[in-house]
Amino acid sequence: MSRKLRFGMIGGGRGAFIGAVHRIAAQMDGQAELVAGAFSADPDRSRASGADLFLAPDRVYGSFDEMATAEAARPAADRLDFVVIVTPNHQHFAPAKRFLEAGFAVVCDKPATFSLAEAVELRRIVDTTGQLFALTHNYTGNAMVRQARALIRSGAIGPVRKVLVEYSQGWLSTHLEATDQKQAAWRTDPARAGAAGCVGDIGTHAENLARFLTGLRITELCADLTTFVPGRALDDDANILLRYEGGAKGVLHCSQICVGDENALNIRVYGETGGLEWHQEHPNELIVKHPDRPREIWRRGNAYVGPEAAALTRIPPGHPEGYLEAFANIYREVFRALRADLAGEPRPADVEFPTIEDGVEGMAFIDAVVHSHGAWVPLPRA
Amino acid sequence: MSRKLRFGMIGGGRGAFIGAVHRIAAQMDGQAELVAGAFSADPDRSRASGADLFLAPDRVYGSFDEMATAEAARPAADRLDFVVIVTPNHQHFAPAKRFLEAGFAVVCDKPATFSLAEAVELRRIVDTTGQLFALTHNYTGNAMVRQARALIRSGAIGPVRKVLVEYSQGWLSTHLEATDQKQAAWRTDPARAGAAGCVGDIGTHAENLARFLTGLRITELCADLTTFVPGRALDDDANILLRYEGGAKGVLHCSQICVGDENALNIRVYGETGGLEWHQEHPNELIVKHPDRPREIWRRGNAYVGPEAAALTRIPPGHPEGYLEAFANIYREVFRALRADLAGEPRPADVEFPTIEDGVEGMAFIDAVVHSHGAWVPLPRA
Amino acid sequence: MSRKLRFGMIGGGRGAFIGAVHRIAAQMDGQAELVAGAFSADPDRSRASGADLFLAPDRVYGSFDEMATAEAARPAADRLDFVVIVTPNHQHFAPAKRFLEAGFAVVCDKPATFSLAEAVELRRIVDTTGQLFALTHNYTGNAMVRQARALIRSGAIGPVRKVLVEYSQGWLSTHLEATDQKQAAWRTDPARAGAAGCVGDIGTHAENLARFLTGLRITELCADLTTFVPGRALDDDANILLRYEGGAKGVLHCSQICVGDENALNIRVYGETGGLEWHQEHPNELIVKHPDRPREIWRRGNAYVGPEAAALTRIPPGHPEGYLEAFANIYREVFRALRADLAGEPRPADVEFPTIEDGVEGMAFIDAVVHSHGAWVPLPRA
Amino acid sequence: MSRKLRFGMIGGGRGAFIGAVHRIAAQMDGQAELVAGAFSADPDRSRASGADLFLAPDRVYGSFDEMATAEAARPAADRLDFVVIVTPNHQHFAPAKRFLEAGFAVVCDKPATFSLAEAVELRRIVDTTGQLFALTHNYTGNAMVRQARALIRSGAIGPVRKVLVEYSQGWLSTHLEATDQKQAAWRTDPARAGAAGCVGDIGTHAENLARFLTGLRITELCADLTTFVPGRALDDDANILLRYEGGAKGVLHCSQICVGDENALNIRVYGETGGLEWHQEHPNELIVKHPDRPREIWRRGNAYVGPEAAALTRIPPGHPEGYLEAFANIYREVFRALRADLAGEPRPADVEFPTIEDGVEGMAFIDAVVHSHGAWVPLPRA
Repeated sequence: MSRKLRFGMIGGGRGAFIGAVHRIAAQMDGQAELVAGAFSADPDRSRASGADLFLAPDRVYGSFDEMATAEAARPAADRLDFVVIVTPNHQHFAPAKRFLEAGFAVVCDKPATFSLAEAVELRRIVDTTGQLFALTHNYTGNAMVRQARALIRSGAIGPVRKVLVEYSQGWLSTHLEATDQKQAAWRTDPARAGAAGCVGDIGTHAENLARFLTGLRITELCADLTTFVPGRALDDDANILLRYEGGAKGVLHCSQICVGDENALNIRVYGETGGLEWHQEHPNELIVKHPDRPREIWRRGNAYVGPEAAALTRIPPGHPEGYLEAFANIYREVFRALRADLAGEPRPADVEFPTIEDGVEGMAFIDAVVHSHGAWVPLPRA
Repeated sequence: MSRKLRFGMIGGGRGAFIGAVHRIAAQMDGQAELVAGAFSADPDRSRASGADLFLAPDRVYGSFDEMATAEAARPAADRLDFVVIVTPNHQHFAPAKRFLEAGFAVVCDKPATFSLAEAVELRRIVDTTGQLFALTHNYTGNAMVRQARALIRSGAIGPVRKVLVEYSQGWLSTHLEATDQKQAAWRTDPARAGAAGCVGDIGTHAENLARFLTGLRITELCADLTTFVPGRALDDDANILLRYEGGAKGVLHCSQICVGDENALNIRVYGETGGLEWHQEHPNELIVKHPDRPREIWRRGNAYVGPEAAALTRIPPGHPEGYLEAFANIYREVFRALRADLAGEPRPADVEFPTIEDGVEGMAFIDAVVHSHGAWVPLPRA
Repeated sequence: MSRKLRFGMIGGGRGAFIGAVHRIAAQMDGQAELVAGAFSADPDRSRASGADLFLAPDRVYGSFDEMATAEAARPAADRLDFVVIVTPNHQHFAPAKRFLEAGFAVVCDKPATFSLAEAVELRRIVDTTGQLFALTHNYTGNAMVRQARALIRSGAIGPVRKVLVEYSQGWLSTHLEATDQKQAAWRTDPARAGAAGCVGDIGTHAENLARFLTGLRITELCADLTTFVPGRALDDDANILLRYEGGAKGVLHCSQICVGDENALNIRVYGETGGLEWHQEHPNELIVKHPDRPREIWRRGNAYVGPEAAALTRIPPGHPEGYLEAFANIYREVFRALRADLAGEPRPADVEFPTIEDGVEGMAFIDAVVHSHGAWVPLPRA
Repeated sequence: MSRKLRFGMIGGGRGAFIGAVHRIAAQMDGQAELVAGAFSADPDRSRASGADLFLAPDRVYGSFDEMATAEAARPAADRLDFVVIVTPNHQHFAPAKRFLEAGFAVVCDKPATFSLAEAVELRRIVDTTGQLFALTHNYTGNAMVRQARALIRSGAIGPVRKVLVEYSQGWLSTHLEATDQKQAAWRTDPARAGAAGCVGDIGTHAENLARFLTGLRITELCADLTTFVPGRALDDDANILLRYEGGAKGVLHCSQICVGDENALNIRVYGETGGLEWHQEHPNELIVKHPDRPREIWRRGNAYVGPEAAALTRIPPGHPEGYLEAFANIYREVFRALRADLAGEPRPADVEFPTIEDGVEGMAFIDAVVHSHGAWVPLPRA
């Protein structure tokens, strides 16, 4: 199919953060082009945002519903191929349902939905409509994360025994939501963020990353949630003990009150015969540890790195790739699947991106964490 | 001017490296769109490359000359705004001259030209035509490089005394050009690369970075060039003593035979009252040293970072930006200038990108280095 | 008192590890001299060890009891000033009691005793005899650990909210005790190590370090202990949630099955207005984080470092001090106290070394951990 | 020989730095004991220093000459085995000559002498007397430096092509010698330090380390010396191009005006098939680079580290050893040789410490550097 894919965006107007990230990521490889959007519930703000982005005014809408109706009516030659949803959590489900049912593929920011029940229902809709649904657990798009997973799968460290995963931030160490900081406001508001604060925002990334790397599900967990900042409604800190299927143990901790930390998403996985370590803030390196020989620093882009990572690499070793490139890798994989879908062909066997299943797992994780109250709770498959 | 800028590309077809980098960088912010190209001297290869990029077949050309003629004849409404030149060094001058004289702005990969004489002549053409000419010394697009320069300019480290700059690679430690490796082939060929190998390819980046940071010119240098790999015609290693205007001293060394090094471009600048250190492979950090208090790690994206760096930052601290984002920052600045030019307005006072002056300086540096033969040679303004 | 202090050693014969460490540490500053020892329960081995150390044969003994009797009978002019106990855990209490009651000061390796009950009883003996008793929680002897504590005490990071402390090793990832490895054998044997394996050996260091830095006691904890290596009797891995007095939360995890890790004792402490981070494997640096300015790297030996750290520093900045120097600092402090005791003078107000109180706390920690079985248990003052 | 070695010290009284380092290093392993000294030319200061060190008053002297006479007259049973010289450079030769000729082994701080001529003469005296003479180029005592040398000797990186060695300090970035800072005063005084400042003090360490690792001699060099601080007589900064026997090239730069640097002695060696990197401030690690597989971090104390490094290791991996331990390793080797000498036996075949040959080489290096004046000068064997 010799053309760029066309997409529209829900949310992500002026002042948003993640919308711009999605636009850069989706368009990085010249495979897709933003052509429509409902960027804000405020029509003026939506229009202004569309103008910033050089969109045709008639494809900038005041609501996702209006957009779905209008875009579905367009001729095939310029109809949208997919929609990107970057609104706060409580506004994921409705547009996702609307567009999926209108026949559009959907890429949605995480966590999948506002609640576990919504996620389960969304899964049903995805299954029923048969549309592609991708969830941007972007860190799994890092080349060296893929390499780590490939090593674990290959048996390089033996059966997994221990997982240490953490996501530490400091930006909410004060009552920032009392100012007009938009990012802080919705993330700390139960009506918009859902049942969890820190755990929903970044703990789910940690859970997803650990599961992606190891292929293991948590069977039960014991969580100690805290709200340190006076006046805040949701957790801003969480320490969680993990038990995995097969007997592995783990710790997941995440926080938004760790002063001076930025996006310290770090994971260490230890197996019977080796260990791996990856740090999001230095994503081009993967530390590999052995019982009887020097630890190794695997660096992205080298010939010795395997095909899974090489496929998600744009530039040579030593020229750092970062957050946006990893994010774009999620889109790169989505596009491989979507082009196959659009062509009526089977998806490539090795295509890999987070789906609604990851969304359901993430919401089940949040659900268990907020119900733990310091006791062990099971994490059944939802 | 409420539209995307339109650009074409000379070189950068299938198998090339830097062409794809320029395409990503130029289009990262949704400010510009590739619409034409002469991607290869082989018309079939050029066409295939254009198809990969979803270009209209009638805007894919077999030569830059053909492209210049055809594009100059197009109506203003879809005429190119600028051209990007990403051919090997010996093919910079001719297309640059052709497009500048045809009324197009030009963005050109470094080094500017094949020889110092060509660079001086190109400067004359730029001056005469009044067109924008930008040279992609991309490392100066790093936010923390800008921060370092701002600190030096502000007097934070006092008058500069010592500069240590290095660019170390290992990929040419064997006779790689004897295989069909395209990147190695032209870089080691005097007919295509020019008078210098390693010095032209990466030494010029080091020279440019040091000058950008400190604002100081080299007045004389003493260079010891070596070709370590048997059968190679150009230098693959260089150690150079530097003397700067104002009395500062320095060392610049670069190499392509340092096994295991990737793109180790590192710079340390010491002044009378402080020191700075930046490492390209960890570009989001800037190390600042003081005589009497703890060294600091300035990290991109934080509120304490100054406006020069903030202007070239897309995402929050702790989410790493890398090589492509820095490269895109050069384009971001170019577009600010170019949009002003196109609107007939003065350029913003703080706009900053490498120009033909940097190109002339770089070629003068190469010229001095290859004529040094281990003795001190002056580096006059060309 | 213008002479070297004289000391004897219990345990630490040929093949031991920690005995040699104590000898180097105690004698590093030329303040003390080893003159006697009961290095092994095997008299031949004890004698051979004494000869290795150039001791007079008549001061090398076959048992601690024999040594206590003989040394107590010596004239004041060459009588021992203190005794160092470096036997396995189950052999701490008896010699400590014997020597304390015979009028000798005692320095003992950690954990203090085999059981909490023994520790409590030993505290009674220390109190009754009035002798000095020091416990070598050696990591608290690191200069930058002292600096971290001083910063916390000064309010530099505000009230503590979160503590993350970990001690990760990999040397017991296989059934090493099945070989004749002496260090592995006793540490994994409940009859010699006590109720805990990994937690007793290294978890107690983590607990002690966190308490030393923050000045906070754990009020309750929830521990998930695991024995990963088949055939092993004691825990080789532990993940523990912590709640501190005053509302701080924490995580302590330790392991001896983390393949490739060596002595990864790391601590991060976050307060309301700052954060601190120290890594035992890079002990000369202390990372200090702020909400609104660059993070700082405080480096040992600089003039800006405070008096607490300066007092425990032997060499200038940039010349690394390590494990042995930190260990020697515990002795340096002990000697300040002991020389005062011997002179019948009050101890210096700022003298600081781990005492039997730390020993009781450590044993109470072990006791709580092994009784938790994944549930919250209180940690009362013993 | 079942006794501790006895030694005396020349220099190193109160207020000195390196004297205390030698005392700790020489006595670290309980193999030697300080019993005499002429610690200062001021007899009162010498006596006070001796008392600090618990020496018998009758073995504390007012001059090295007095000491040599008195100690030579003592009975064999308590006669000194060796003497340590830690005076400023201009006072190395006379005491070394005096004690060597009186039949004592000598350990001397670096650089060997005040001038090349003195070094050559001292070599003659060492040869004539047959006494052991060791020069404390202490960095070669680092275990991972030994490992690096062993790897190079084994051919692990192939024939050496490039050496990058640097020693960067910042403590003399101001006119510190104008205060009463004793260390600064003599090091910047031509009458006491010799012909070079920075180059003599630390450049010689860099030269020695590079030669030790690679086994290669410099054949010619080109040096650009600078005195940045007004009022200073000697160089405080040097940038030097190196050419080695066999065709390798190199850069050595050293400085004492690099604000914020402490003891940044770093070396990188690249061969045809690999590269090595060692940083003195993180001495327990050795970075090994390969053309086609991940870079490795070799860490001191592991079983995979070879016998040369293992022999100079006291504690397990992950417990850092530092400057003092490396310094003590020089003594450890000296003692192996000295005990053999005293027993009239041949020295162990693998004994390794810096000798007067290293001293002559170092002085020849200084001599060449100060005579270069920016031009290439040969470095003949002296």
